[in-house]
Amino acid sequence: MEGEQIKTIRLGFLGAGTVGGGTLDLLARRSEQIARSIGVEFDVRRVSVRNPSRPRDVAIDPSILTTDAWSVVDDPSIDVVVELIGGESPASDYIERALRHGKHVVTANKEVIAKYGAELLDLANHSNVNLFFEASVGGGIPVIGVLRHDLIANEITSLRAIINGTTNFILTAMEQGRDYAEALREAQRLGYAEADPSNDVDGVDATYKLAILSTLAFRTNVHPDQIEHVGIRELRQKDFQFAAGMGYVIKLLAAADVGPNGIEASVRPTMIPTDHHLANVKGVFNAVLIDGDQIDKFMLYGRGAGARPTASAVVADLCAVAHNLQRNVIDRVEIVHQHRPIVDFGDTRSRYYLRLQVTDQPGVLAQIARVLGEHEISIASVMQHETDETAGVAEIVIMTHQAAERAMAAALGLMRTLAVVHEVSAFIRVER
Amino acid sequence: MEGEQIKTIRLGFLGAGTVGGGTLDLLARRSEQIARSIGVEFDVRRVSVRNPSRPRDVAIDPSILTTDAWSVVDDPSIDVVVELIGGESPASDYIERALRHGKHVVTANKEVIAKYGAELLDLANHSNVNLFFEASVGGGIPVIGVLRHDLIANEITSLRAIINGTTNFILTAMEQGRDYAEALREAQRLGYAEADPSNDVDGVDATYKLAILSTLAFRTNVHPDQIEHVGIRELRQKDFQFAAGMGYVIKLLAAADVGPNGIEASVRPTMIPTDHHLANVKGVFNAVLIDGDQIDKFMLYGRGAGARPTASAVVADLCAVAHNLQRNVIDRVEIVHQHRPIVDFGDTRSRYYLRLQVTDQPGVLAQIARVLGEHEISIASVMQHETDETAGVAEIVIMTHQAAERAMAAALGLMRTLAVVHEVSAFIRVER
Repeated sequence: MEGEQIKTIRLGFLGAGTVGGGTLDLLARRSEQIARSIGVEFDVRRVSVRNPSRPRDVAIDPSILTTDAWSVVDDPSIDVVVELIGGESPASDYIERALRHGKHVVTANKEVIAKYGAELLDLANHSNVNLFFEASVGGGIPVIGVLRHDLIANEITSLRAIINGTTNFILTAMEQGRDYAEALREAQRLGYAEADPSNDVDGVDATYKLAILSTLAFRTNVHPDQIEHVGIRELRQKDFQFAAGMGYVIKLLAAADVGPNGIEASVRPTMIPTDHHLANVKGVFNAVLIDGDQIDKFMLYGRGAGARPTASAVVADLCAVAHNLQRNVIDRVEIVHQHRPIVDFGDTRSRYYLRLQVTDQPGVLAQIARVLGEHEISIASVMQHETDETAGVAEIVIMTHQAAERAMAAALGLMRTLAVVHEVSAFIRVER
Repeated sequence: MEGEQIKTIRLGFLGAGTVGGGTLDLLARRSEQIARSIGVEFDVRRVSVRNPSRPRDVAIDPSILTTDAWSVVDDPSIDVVVELIGGESPASDYIERALRHGKHVVTANKEVIAKYGAELLDLANHSNVNLFFEASVGGGIPVIGVLRHDLIANEITSLRAIINGTTNFILTAMEQGRDYAEALREAQRLGYAEADPSNDVDGVDATYKLAILSTLAFRTNVHPDQIEHVGIRELRQKDFQFAAGMGYVIKLLAAADVGPNGIEASVRPTMIPTDHHLANVKGVFNAVLIDGDQIDKFMLYGRGAGARPTASAVVADLCAVAHNLQRNVIDRVEIVHQHRPIVDFGDTRSRYYLRLQVTDQPGVLAQIARVLGEHEISIASVMQHETDETAGVAEIVIMTHQAAERAMAAALGLMRTLAVVHEVSAFIRVER
């Protein structure tokens, strides 16, 4: 920057894996561009890793490598701690101590921010430092900054998001005809799913991200434990075919709304119409659809994971910290304004898709319809798609009108006790 | 904000029309939320208008109204000038003087920023004040902030945008079967198009916006005069039908790329495949698709105009200025890093769609094919769709392979001289 001295910002990294390595690489490659844009240069002073002798894609001076993360957090010469090890513990301890030491922190850790974000942000404010976490949700999609800054004048009423690339990759493959196990194996082969994919396929990862987005959007604390979540393991190829026939796709939808009784939040496999804004989000891509009273519908779409997009977000946060550090200020945006109750998920309402295996005999549909009717659930459509005549089993697909989740759960419980119902094979929320 | 004094920021408004009125209204309604978020309150000290007695949707204290915009710009008690009158002159003079006076400026003025943005930003830097212009492109879509801050570590290689709601409304209506005149009338009736729609339908408005986006994305000055633009007046209903038959929609596409010889930028009616990210942007909605080397494909989608979305962006800018003012700092992001040549549009390449009225006689197609061949333009497909037998006129639709714009223009010039060519009815770029 013309006429100004370039200021050096000293960084300490926790982690040099996919995202950490990608960030170090990007910082090295873009140092000149960053210096020109904001007049700072970054000096990476220490990098803590588990295994210093592991071969890496990015060249790191061996003299700055350490296996002792505390030595990074406690190093008085470091201005900013970049936490990219992930997971709740010990990452949250490192972040807390760094903030207490008056260090700025940039993190991609969705679990820590989802669970302890409010306290850590308070701590950052009290320590007069920045805590930035753009990379914690949506990889390279700058949804955190948009919610914190750009939509500041909006009352946000609804969030709909596809924020887990692994599951969206699997669901897109299933939409194209593959079965769950096959799609999962492909995701693993391509590095999109871990050997133990539970965190993704059970909806846990998406729940952390939705907790962060909801807290920012609704300006109230939303803890991941308060978010109902169901994973994608139970979805069957057949349901994608039926969905397509009715004009729907199945997505793992992270949804949060301001309802009359408080915040309604869930991560669930959901049928959405093929003309829905999120229906065309395919593969590992992510998207966040936001309804605000000023902006109306607004969507961000992009790569939600991967070394490069995530590094892009981490470096943008580092530049924001550096820009503030140069001026000796912090971003002081109060996030939580109010306490809003979180609605018990049983009290929320939706349309539902059901698929049942039943005995192929007269009167069975009447019994099922009676159970639904007794729970005040009305049927929008019913189809008997195919019958395995030799086994005497028929398959019934039901689409309901709006009903309460609790009533649906009770009706399904009762149905399962009916002698004529062999199996409730699918039970999926349906968005208009 | 707990434990901090609320700081008052004094505003002077130029204009209280649709956007100005909407901004004043939003500031009044969200004052508490803004105070909680960033610890400031806004005090609107003066509002300049053309006609003080005109009835307005928003209540403005008559004692702060003035017809003298200079009195707002020169008022020493005002911290921030909010310029919402639009147009090049006198708005650019007001902005310049406000900056020289050391006042911060927030503007929605795409024409001024497109033409004088680089100089005005330099002036702002020298005066140590902020000049923010989020509302100048894409209404409530925060694309300026995303380009300035969030994508700072990216090399952006391509922009594709639908950034004029008026034309997109008209084109969407034409896609649905209406003709141009009918669609324009409907846009005018709904307030989406002005009585004289030239600025929108001729592509001028989109050109200003693309100049701003390209300058930010490519970190080089791109002036609107350097952007080739063609409007939508010549499009015919028939072309939408042919496009649909081939799997395309027609959009007024603002496109800019980093090519091997420099920046290629244009605003042109363009056929894009129906599965393109921008194909589903309907009606007055806008979208910007960005290719960056780190984030890969990234898209922002939302309402690109209207009082509320635009006010949302203006207020977000005001909050950013206020946040800085509180800390006595400015956002100092250098935008222009380098000089990059702008490629002469004749040297750019594309596929093309042509529709010709020709004499219905043997050998005509051969003559046309020969002209194209002589200009090194190869034909990808050709269709003779219908014939008005009584008039002896046939219609030929040609899709070319990649060809240079200059060669196409020369070939079309030559075709028009052929006795057998009655009319070149359509000539549209085609994106893969």
